[in-house]
Amino acid sequence: MTGEFRKRLEEMSEITDRRLEDYMNGVLSGTSGQRKVAEAMKYSLSAGGKRIRPVLTMEFCRVCGGDPEAALPAACALEMIHTFSLIHDDLPCMDDDDMRRGKPSCHIAFGEPTALLAGDALLNFAYETVCGGRLSAETKIALITELTKATGVNGMIGGQEIDTAFEGQMDESVLLDMYSMKTGALLKSACKMGCIAAGAGDEKIAAAELYAEKLGLAFQIIDDILDVTGDEKLLGKPIGSDRGNEKETFVSLNGIENSRKTAKTLTDDALGALKAFENTDFLKELTLFLLKREY
Amino acid sequence: MTGEFRKRLEEMSEITDRRLEDYMNGVLSGTSGQRKVAEAMKYSLSAGGKRIRPVLTMEFCRVCGGDPEAALPAACALEMIHTFSLIHDDLPCMDDDDMRRGKPSCHIAFGEPTALLAGDALLNFAYETVCGGRLSAETKIALITELTKATGVNGMIGGQEIDTAFEGQMDESVLLDMYSMKTGALLKSACKMGCIAAGAGDEKIAAAELYAEKLGLAFQIIDDILDVTGDEKLLGKPIGSDRGNEKETFVSLNGIENSRKTAKTLTDDALGALKAFENTDFLKELTLFLLKREY
Repeated sequence: MTGEFRKRLEEMSEITDRRLEDYMNGVLSGTSGQRKVAEAMKYSLSAGGKRIRPVLTMEFCRVCGGDPEAALPAACALEMIHTFSLIHDDLPCMDDDDMRRGKPSCHIAFGEPTALLAGDALLNFAYETVCGGRLSAETKIALITELTKATGVNGMIGGQEIDTAFEGQMDESVLLDMYSMKTGALLKSACKMGCIAAGAGDEKIAAAELYAEKLGLAFQIIDDILDVTGDEKLLGKPIGSDRGNEKETFVSLNGIENSRKTAKTLTDDALGALKAFENTDFLKELTLFLLKREY
Repeated sequence: MTGEFRKRLEEMSEITDRRLEDYMNGVLSGTSGQRKVAEAMKYSLSAGGKRIRPVLTMEFCRVCGGDPEAALPAACALEMIHTFSLIHDDLPCMDDDDMRRGKPSCHIAFGEPTALLAGDALLNFAYETVCGGRLSAETKIALITELTKATGVNGMIGGQEIDTAFEGQMDESVLLDMYSMKTGALLKSACKMGCIAAGAGDEKIAAAELYAEKLGLAFQIIDDILDVTGDEKLLGKPIGSDRGNEKETFVSLNGIENSRKTAKTLTDDALGALKAFENTDFLKELTLFLLKREY
């Protein structure tokens, strides 16, 4: 990992943080009796994370010859939708998680009704955000179309339904569907929206989609591997604890060695998909940074 | 109420029902493991109601010289957002209502996690729907901008937060804010989006907004009046039971006679606002149909 890579990653992450804060201050400034729901939105949105999706959007915009700044509203919209999904996933009727990134989760900090509404409002505000900015109306509609499909029943929300509702043995094809929808869809959208914001053609959009598909699956499998190899250092924590003891993971279905091989192949495929673009040094380093953890 | 009015109202409501069913069949057709969330969306969306918002959208499009059919995607999007809000309002952490329009509410029929996701998915699909159809990209962006603002923190979701979170005495200004946001915002959007879809100018959009503001408030006050006068036929049911016994309504703050006068004035103001448009016979009848119940 070069120093320059780390510096640029940090810069892009900070640009995203600042813009998200601007948006949330705008939302807060118009409120009175409903202020609490705006505070809950800001609280969860500023809980951080690496802002990987916005970085991907801005960087794909750049490698397609666009101005990364023009893609920033769409990049921030992605982060709002990611955050909305975390707030709703943490609710008692879903995963019932009290903590999120070392802070009380939204419903613990603000109560369940406000957390529910804050999630709704972030999803809604994501689309309001894409409507702003200086891209053409055609491009904005293309971005919103992409983002709604990635978020909806055949994307993130559908993946969440499969994860929540599936009972009994999950075979590999259902598991891969679930991975692809629950976490893969927004990653794909991040990369594709960068290309769309730059006005790139279908070929580049398809290459970005392929890259994101491989990246997302590799990331998920490495997560599954770490869930086991991490556990081995502890005593007696059962395999697959990330997804609950009764649920399958890629590793529980395929074993660690095969999973490692698959992750390696997927990483190579992701790097290969970048050949459709120029000036991809940063994207290559980002790929290895995200996947370096294990293979 | 003329026979012709009733016939047209029924026709427009049926056009909306058919289009909503088409959209939902489209959503269902692409599903496998996540089918249940799509079924829950369709279940709640087909629970009916008068489709007043879509009718207003199509009719304002017509009186502005547009083709009502062109406004149908936006009209259906409004109904999706209205339905999403009902699903989330009925959840145990909100109003905890088991029944909705004579049918088990969504979380009773499909379970809490699926109902939560179905609400999310309907909100999201509303924007996907506006992106479809044959209007220009500029018009679609204007529609989405309008709809996101009406739905968000300073609209319906904000009104829900005030209604849910407000403790203690609610004075008239907070109550009117809450009415205006929780139920008024989507009604306003229904009328304004009809004008926007027809390419109408700011003056007509402002007149439609004024009409909707008066209509919405009159409707809400009449609801409050009926809540009391209806109760008087029963024995001992306390005033204001619609909003819970401890909450204020317009009637509990102003008395029945003053409320009736206000509702009458608001109805006249709504009808007055229609003077900015031509061929408003249907809209006038619709206004009286919605408000005829009491004043």
